Amino acid sequence: MSYKTYHDLGEECGIFGITNNAEASNYAYLGLHGLQHRGQESCGIVTAGSDGLRKAVGKGKVGDFFTEENLKPLTGTAAIGHVRYSTTGGSNIVNAQPLVMISHRGSLAVGLNGNLVNAKPLREKLEAEGSIFHTTTDSEIIIHLMARSREKNTVMAFIEAIRQIEGAYCYMLLTEKELIAVRDPHGIRPLSIGKLGDSHVIASETSAFDIIAAEHVRDVAAGEVISIDLTTNELRSDFPFKETHEHMCLFEYVYFAKPSSDILGKSVHSIRYKSGITLAKEYPAKADLVIPVPDSGVSAALGFSDASGIPFTMGLVRSHYVGRTFIEPSQSIRGLGVRLKFAPIRKLLDGKRIVLIEDSIVRGTTSLRIIKMLRSAGVKEVHMRIASPMVKFPCFYGIDFGTYEELIANKKSVSEIAEMINADSLGFISLPGLREASGFAANELCDACFSGRYPVAVEESHSKLAFEV
Amino acid sequence: MSYKTYHDLGEECGIFGITNNAEASNYAYLGLHGLQHRGQESCGIVTAGSDGLRKAVGKGKVGDFFTEENLKPLTGTAAIGHVRYSTTGGSNIVNAQPLVMISHRGSLAVGLNGNLVNAKPLREKLEAEGSIFHTTTDSEIIIHLMARSREKNTVMAFIEAIRQIEGAYCYMLLTEKELIAVRDPHGIRPLSIGKLGDSHVIASETSAFDIIAAEHVRDVAAGEVISIDLTTNELRSDFPFKETHEHMCLFEYVYFAKPSSDILGKSVHSIRYKSGITLAKEYPAKADLVIPVPDSGVSAALGFSDASGIPFTMGLVRSHYVGRTFIEPSQSIRGLGVRLKFAPIRKLLDGKRIVLIEDSIVRGTTSLRIIKMLRSAGVKEVHMRIASPMVKFPCFYGIDFGTYEELIANKKSVSEIAEMINADSLGFISLPGLREASGFAANELCDACFSGRYPVAVEESHSKLAFEV
Amino acid sequence: MSYKTYHDLGEECGIFGITNNAEASNYAYLGLHGLQHRGQESCGIVTAGSDGLRKAVGKGKVGDFFTEENLKPLTGTAAIGHVRYSTTGGSNIVNAQPLVMISHRGSLAVGLNGNLVNAKPLREKLEAEGSIFHTTTDSEIIIHLMARSREKNTVMAFIEAIRQIEGAYCYMLLTEKELIAVRDPHGIRPLSIGKLGDSHVIASETSAFDIIAAEHVRDVAAGEVISIDLTTNELRSDFPFKETHEHMCLFEYVYFAKPSSDILGKSVHSIRYKSGITLAKEYPAKADLVIPVPDSGVSAALGFSDASGIPFTMGLVRSHYVGRTFIEPSQSIRGLGVRLKFAPIRKLLDGKRIVLIEDSIVRGTTSLRIIKMLRSAGVKEVHMRIASPMVKFPCFYGIDFGTYEELIANKKSVSEIAEMINADSLGFISLPGLREASGFAANELCDACFSGRYPVAVEESHSKLAFEV
Amino acid sequence: MSYKTYHDLGEECGIFGITNNAEASNYAYLGLHGLQHRGQESCGIVTAGSDGLRKAVGKGKVGDFFTEENLKPLTGTAAIGHVRYSTTGGSNIVNAQPLVMISHRGSLAVGLNGNLVNAKPLREKLEAEGSIFHTTTDSEIIIHLMARSREKNTVMAFIEAIRQIEGAYCYMLLTEKELIAVRDPHGIRPLSIGKLGDSHVIASETSAFDIIAAEHVRDVAAGEVISIDLTTNELRSDFPFKETHEHMCLFEYVYFAKPSSDILGKSVHSIRYKSGITLAKEYPAKADLVIPVPDSGVSAALGFSDASGIPFTMGLVRSHYVGRTFIEPSQSIRGLGVRLKFAPIRKLLDGKRIVLIEDSIVRGTTSLRIIKMLRSAGVKEVHMRIASPMVKFPCFYGIDFGTYEELIANKKSVSEIAEMINADSLGFISLPGLREASGFAANELCDACFSGRYPVAVEESHSKLAFEV
Repeated sequence: MSYKTYHDLGEECGIFGITNNAEASNYAYLGLHGLQHRGQESCGIVTAGSDGLRKAVGKGKVGDFFTEENLKPLTGTAAIGHVRYSTTGGSNIVNAQPLVMISHRGSLAVGLNGNLVNAKPLREKLEAEGSIFHTTTDSEIIIHLMARSREKNTVMAFIEAIRQIEGAYCYMLLTEKELIAVRDPHGIRPLSIGKLGDSHVIASETSAFDIIAAEHVRDVAAGEVISIDLTTNELRSDFPFKETHEHMCLFEYVYFAKPSSDILGKSVHSIRYKSGITLAKEYPAKADLVIPVPDSGVSAALGFSDASGIPFTMGLVRSHYVGRTFIEPSQSIRGLGVRLKFAPIRKLLDGKRIVLIEDSIVRGTTSLRIIKMLRSAGVKEVHMRIASPMVKFPCFYGIDFGTYEELIANKKSVSEIAEMINADSLGFISLPGLREASGFAANELCDACFSGRYPVAVEESHSKLAFEV
Repeated sequence: MSYKTYHDLGEECGIFGITNNAEASNYAYLGLHGLQHRGQESCGIVTAGSDGLRKAVGKGKVGDFFTEENLKPLTGTAAIGHVRYSTTGGSNIVNAQPLVMISHRGSLAVGLNGNLVNAKPLREKLEAEGSIFHTTTDSEIIIHLMARSREKNTVMAFIEAIRQIEGAYCYMLLTEKELIAVRDPHGIRPLSIGKLGDSHVIASETSAFDIIAAEHVRDVAAGEVISIDLTTNELRSDFPFKETHEHMCLFEYVYFAKPSSDILGKSVHSIRYKSGITLAKEYPAKADLVIPVPDSGVSAALGFSDASGIPFTMGLVRSHYVGRTFIEPSQSIRGLGVRLKFAPIRKLLDGKRIVLIEDSIVRGTTSLRIIKMLRSAGVKEVHMRIASPMVKFPCFYGIDFGTYEELIANKKSVSEIAEMINADSLGFISLPGLREASGFAANELCDACFSGRYPVAVEESHSKLAFEV
Repeated sequence: MSYKTYHDLGEECGIFGITNNAEASNYAYLGLHGLQHRGQESCGIVTAGSDGLRKAVGKGKVGDFFTEENLKPLTGTAAIGHVRYSTTGGSNIVNAQPLVMISHRGSLAVGLNGNLVNAKPLREKLEAEGSIFHTTTDSEIIIHLMARSREKNTVMAFIEAIRQIEGAYCYMLLTEKELIAVRDPHGIRPLSIGKLGDSHVIASETSAFDIIAAEHVRDVAAGEVISIDLTTNELRSDFPFKETHEHMCLFEYVYFAKPSSDILGKSVHSIRYKSGITLAKEYPAKADLVIPVPDSGVSAALGFSDASGIPFTMGLVRSHYVGRTFIEPSQSIRGLGVRLKFAPIRKLLDGKRIVLIEDSIVRGTTSLRIIKMLRSAGVKEVHMRIASPMVKFPCFYGIDFGTYEELIANKKSVSEIAEMINADSLGFISLPGLREASGFAANELCDACFSGRYPVAVEESHSKLAFEV
Repeated sequence: MSYKTYHDLGEECGIFGITNNAEASNYAYLGLHGLQHRGQESCGIVTAGSDGLRKAVGKGKVGDFFTEENLKPLTGTAAIGHVRYSTTGGSNIVNAQPLVMISHRGSLAVGLNGNLVNAKPLREKLEAEGSIFHTTTDSEIIIHLMARSREKNTVMAFIEAIRQIEGAYCYMLLTEKELIAVRDPHGIRPLSIGKLGDSHVIASETSAFDIIAAEHVRDVAAGEVISIDLTTNELRSDFPFKETHEHMCLFEYVYFAKPSSDILGKSVHSIRYKSGITLAKEYPAKADLVIPVPDSGVSAALGFSDASGIPFTMGLVRSHYVGRTFIEPSQSIRGLGVRLKFAPIRKLLDGKRIVLIEDSIVRGTTSLRIIKMLRSAGVKEVHMRIASPMVKFPCFYGIDFGTYEELIANKKSVSEIAEMINADSLGFISLPGLREASGFAANELCDACFSGRYPVAVEESHSKLAFEV
C-alpha cells in the first residue's frame, strides 16, 4: 500500500438501512443485492445492538463477499449497508464503507452516496486543527466534523456537521442509539423510506424494498434529516436547512437506477420508454429492426419500436457470467472484450438495417466495438439512437465520467462521433425532449452533465474546469 | 472429503479446443466464456506444447477462477477447455475437468460433455481387472479403456475405447501430439468446428466462436471422430461406427443453448421465436402484455407477441449480480430468493393481465414464486405459456432434471399445475408443435424427456426407472 | 469485528529501524527475525522513499507473513519494523504496527515497544477535543499529540508530544524526511544503536544486529531522542527531559531478551548463568541431574550445575514445530498441550532425582504440567529452582502478566506453590541475589513486578490496584 | 502444474496409526506433532468409520495446516497420518499422503516412510498393463499391485504386493475394515507399537507415543506385517518373508530421530551422548568450551564435555521462529541465512578456543557459515568434531542427501574439508567407534552411507552410481 495525501473525486454508491429487526443484517444483505447495480467494488454492513457496533466490509459483490460465516456475528437489530462503485484505478479496501470510527461520542458507522464539493478545504482545515484522516473518502469528513462539535445530542451534532458541507449526498449513520439519514438540500441523489412489518427501511432506490418485499412509503425530501431512535423505533423528521430544492439527477433515470425502481414518484422504466418514443420522433430511421444494447437500452428501444412501428427484437444477447475483472490476454487479441459481454444473433441480423438503442455515449469506445461486432454479424446499416443528450460536462456530484478530456462530446460533433463509431446515422435525444419524457420541469432536475448548469456551486479547483468549457 | 464408491448421474457441460496458436490458452479462456452458460461449477484448461501438458483447473466461473497468473504457465500452442454444470449437492474439485492422467501412452487430458449409460458396468469391469479410479466422472473411463488398449496409435486406441461405451457424449482429448474430438453416434450433444486464422477450433456451441471472432465452418457429424495432428495441424475425419443417426437433443434448443448459437444449421433464437408463435396459436390468451421470464423466455415471448398482437415488454428485470451461492438467511425470510434474480416493474404491471412466457417447467417451484411476486406487484391475471412440452421423463444423456419424483409433470395434470403455481391459465406447447417450430423431423431429434422414447438403450438400473412410467 | 471503546493494557514488542540503505526493507525483514522472540502476533514494515511511505503489516510471524511479493513494493531507503506480542484474547489486525496515519504533517509511521501509564486521560482529552481514534494502541496517541502541535519541525513536535506522556516506552517514527526514536526518561525498555556500512540501525535488542552482521555502537540513553535526517543520514541526539534515570526492566534479562543479546553492556546469558550460581547457593539440592526447561532455563541451569557439581543434561527436548495456535481437541484429551512443546528423554530420567530450572513462575500451570510429565517419565524427585523472585505485582510498563488475580505468588506461599505444582522442593532466587547476579545497583533497575516499587507513578485506576497489595 | 513422467528419488517421512478410538483423528493430529521433525513439507490424516474413509491432506506443518474445521469431518474411529519431508525443488500437493484411491476393493488409504529400489521397473510394468498413475510416489505402486491381485483377503493381497517390492519401507494402510502396517524385511526404517487405553497405536518413532501419553509396547520386527481388524480391534502379526534381518539405519540415530525416542530398545539421546564420549577419545582437543550446534549436536556435546572435562555451554542460541521458507532477499546480502537460525553469544565466545560439535557434515556449506559467524563473534580457535563418520555414499532407502556430487566427503579429505570450512582442526568419529556407541553389531545396522555396504541390492541405474565409487 502506498500513502499519498490525495482527494478522491467521486463515485456512485448505494446505501441501505433497517431498524427494529432481529434479522437486520440478513435484510441488509438482501437489500444490498437490490442496490448492487449502483456499485460492485466493495460492500459492507454494520449492525448496532447490545454488543455495540459490529462490522463486515470487503471487496467485491454482495453475493461474493458475504457468507454465512461473516454475516452471523452481525447480531444487532439495526443495520446499515453500503455498496461502492468500481472507479478505475486505485480502489482501496481502506475506503470501503460503512466506515466505523470511535470518538468521544462512542462508535459511529457511516456510509455515503454522493460527493462533497468542498471536501478539500474542509479536510485541510480539519487537518490543520489536528485531525488525522484514515481514508480518502468524503464519508470520513462528516465524522470529524461531528467529533469536533460541542453539541451533545448526536442528531444535532450531525445537523451542525452537514451545515458545513456542500455537495450532492445521502449520508446514513448508525450509532448504538440511533440510525440517521439525510438527503442533501439540493435533492440531487435519491433516498426512499419503506416499511417492513414493524421495521423502518431506508434505501437509495426502491429496488431494495422490492427484494425484501417491503412497502415503499415515501421518498426523503431534499434537505430532510431522518432519525430513528433504536430504542423506541420512532422516526423523526427534521428540516435543518433554510433553503432546499429538488434537483434530482437526470442521469439516475437515464442510466444508474434500476428500471424497476420508482424515484420521486416516477418509474425509471416509464421515463426510459417515453424517451424512446421521443427519440423516434426526433430522429426517425428507416430500418428493419429496433435492437437495444442490453439491458439499459431495452426500455427506450421498446418505446422507439412502438412509436416507429419497426419491430423490436433482442439481437444482442447479454452474458450473465462476466467476471468483475476481465483479463485482456495479449496484444494480438485485444478488442474482444465487448464480445464477452454481448453476443449478436447472426441469423437474425444478417443483411438487416437496424436501429441500435443505447442509453448514453460517454467515451464512445464501447459503441465503436458493438457496431463493429454487429457489422461482422452481417448488419447492413446501423442507425444509432441515444436515449440521453450529449454528456459534455463533468459531474461533481458523484458520477465518475472520467476526465473532461475523455468526454467524446467535448471533442467531436454528432457527425464526427457517427463517423468515429462507424454508425450510418446517429441521434441524441434533445435535452428538452428528455426532460419532457421525465415529466419534471427543468428546474426540478440536475442536468449539469448535459447543460453545464450546476445547481451547487463547485469549489474553485473544480469549477475552474467547469467554466473553462 | 468423503470417499464412497458411487456413480455420477450426469451433467451438462461445455468443451472447447484450439490448435496451432501461440495464444492457445488465452483463446481457450475467451472461448470458455462463450460456453459459460453450460456450466458454472468448475472450469479448466490444459495446453500441450514443448513443455508437455500443463493444466489449470478450479472451482467457479471462468472469469472468477482464471487470472493472469494461472493462465501464464499454460504455454502450449494447443489447448482444450471445459466448463462444468453445477449439480445439486456434492460437487468435488477432484471431478473438475479436463482430467490429466499418465499412462504408458504418456500424459493425456480429457473433457466430456454428456453422459454414458453403460458407465457402471464398464467401471466395474475395469476395477475388477485392477484399474484404480480417481474421480467419479465418466471422463476417466475413456482413459482407462485407452490405457488397456494394445493399439499403438492414439486415435485408434481412442476409437477402440469409444466403441465400448454407450451414451450421449462429446469427448475432447489432448496429448502432446494430437487433439481428438468425437460426437456420439446418436448425435445427441452438439459439437461444431470453426477456423481462426490458421487455427482449428472446436466447441460445444458456436457462441464460443463468436466470442473469439472465429468462423463457423461446419458441425461435427454424429459418430464422427476428428483428430488434429499438432505438428502438421492437419484435421482428419473418421467414421468408426457402423450405424450413426442424428438425434439432436431438443432441450438444447429450448433451454441450454445460447440464443445466439446455431446448432445443426438452426438458429436457437429462431426456433424459440417460432415456438412462441405456435404457443400463441395453441394457447391464445386475452391479456394486456406479453412478459418473458428473462432471459430464456425472451425469444418465445417476442414470437407470442408478434403472433397475438399483444404488446411485448420486459416487465421483469433480471439481476446481473447474483452470486453463485445465495445464502438464504433464515427461516423467517425464506422464499425471497427469486427476488434476487428478478425485479418486477410495478408501474408497468399494476392492474394488468399478462401472458407470462417461460422456457420450461421442471419442478414448478420457481414459477410459483415468480407468479406470487408478480401478483404482489399488482398483476391481475397471469396466463402462463410454456415454450416446451411437459418434462415427464428423466434424461440419461447429460441433463440433470433431478429425480423422477421431482418432475412435477409426473405427479400433476396441467390444471393441477396451474392451480399449484397460482396461474389463471397454463399452456404447454405440444410436442408436434415444438418439433415443427424446430424444423426437424421427429426421428432427427431426441425428445425422450417429453416423449419417453430414448434413442440409446439405457442400462438396466436406469431403464427400470424409465419403463416404470 | 466488534467495536467497543476500551483501553489496551500493554504488551511487549520489538522495534527496528534502518536508514540510507537500498535494501532497507530486506534488512528490516531480517532484523525483525532477530526480534521475533519479543512478539509473534503481528509484524510489519514501513519504508520511506521517493514514493512516500509504503507499508506491509499482517498477522503472524515475520517468516510466515512476509513474502517476496509483499516485500518488493517496500522500495524506500529507510525502514522501520515492528513485531507484536500475542496477548490473550482479542488480537486485532487493526492494532498491528507500524501504524501509518496522515495529518497536516503528511504521512507518518510509528511503532511502540512499551506502555503508557497516562494513556487513558490523554486519550479522553484528545477525544473530547474532537480526535478520532482508529486503534486501541498507545502508538496512536503520540500521532494525535503531534497532529495537534503547532510546532513546524517534526522532531520538535515529537518532543512536545512525548513530554505529555508517562510510561515505559521506546517509540520509533518514520516520515518522508526523518527517522526518529526515543527511549523513555525512566530507561525501562531497551534500545540500541548500530552501524551497518553507511547505514544507521536501531533496534530493541542487539540480537537484531547479529542477524544482519551489523556492529553494535552503543545503547540509547534514558530520555534520549535520536533523529536521523534521511537526506544527509546525519544522526542527532537530543535530551529534552529535565530528569532522566536508568531503570532497566529486570524481567528483560530474566525472560524476554534473547540470551545472545547485550543490554546496557550486560550479557543476558551471563546474568542468567550467574543467577543459576546464586540459586545453587541459596537453594542447594541433592539430586542426580540438573535439567533446564528449555530454552529460557538453559543458562541458569548451566550455572546451577557448575556451582553445585550436579551434572547438567537436556532431559527435556523442545519441539521446533509447534504452530502458533494449538487446537486442544476435546475434553477427554486436554492437558496434553505441554507435550507438544517438550518431550522428556525417558531413558535419561527414569529413577532420577532432578533439579529443574525454570526462568520464572507467573501462574504455575505450566510448571504443574511439566512436573507431571517428568514424573510419568520416571523421575523420582523434582527440586524446582526458579531463576527469578516471585512475581507479585502487575507490570504497567509493557509486560502482560495477566490479571493480578492470576499471579500465583499473590495467593500462595512458596510451600503452597510447591504442593500445587507437585515439586519435592521449590526455591525462588532472592531479589538481592538476582540484583547481584545482574551487576546493577538496586536503583538502576525496575524490579516493580518483584518488589512493588514502581519507578513511574501509575495513573489512578492502575495504581489503586497496585497499592491494594 | 506441469506433467512429466518421472520417478521420485526418495524422502524421509513419518507415519502414525490408531484404532478403536472416538478421538482417532485428534490423536493422529497430536501424534503427527511428535513426528513433525521427520517431515515438514506436507501432512495428512485419513480416518475410517461408518461414513467410509475421510481425508484431509495439505501443505506445511501439522500445526499450520490442521484446524478445528478440517479435523472435525474426520469422524472415523481409526486413523492413519503422515508427515512428509521437504525435498528441494518440486514439491507437489498431489504427492501429499496418505493417498486415497478407489479400486474394486473399495477405498484404501496408504502412507509410506521409505523408498523402493525397484519402483521404476514395477511402475513401467504396471503402466504397460494399463495402470494409470496419479502421483509420482512409491506409495501408489503398492495400491496398483493390490488392485491387480486376485486375492480376496485384503491382508493377503497386501502381502502379495509387498513380496514384489524391494527397498527400505514402512507402509501403513487403512481400509474400512482394517489398519495394516509393515516394516521391510531388511529392517531399515523404524516402526513401533503402542497402547493407549483400548486403542492400538503404531508410529515411526516413540516420540509420537510420548505426546499422547501412550505406552510403548514393542517395536515391529523386520518383515513383520501387523493387521488390526477395525471391528474386533484384534492385532494380528504375520511374517510373510522367508528371510528377514534387522539392519536399522544408523543415520536415524545420528540425525533423523528425536533424542527422546527409543528405537529397537536404544535411546537416541544415549547413543549420541556415547558418540560424544568416543569422539573425545578419538579426537581430543585443547579448548576452553564445548559448544554444540543446536539441537542435534547437544547430546554428543554433553558426552564430549563429560569425557574431556572441557566445560559445556550453549554458545549458539537456536531461533524457534524461522519460517519454513526463508526469502534470501538479494545478492548483496546473501549468506545471512544461517544467522536466522543460530545466534552466537558474543560475551561468552569472545577470545575463546572452542570444540564445536555437529551431528554430521553432508555438503559442508552450513559448517562454513557457522564457523564464519563464530569467528566474527570473537572465537579464536574452532575445533570441529562430527558425531558421525564421513557421508560418502548416497542413500537409496529414503534419505535425500542430494546428488552424489554434492557429498563433500567424496571430493575432499578431512584436512581439505577443515580448510574449506575454516576449522582449526576437524575430526569425524570412526565407523567402529559409532557402532560401538550404538551398542549394535556391525551386521545389525545399515551404514551404507558411511561404508558403501548396501543391505538391499539396488536397481541397475541406481547401483551403477554406487559401484562407481
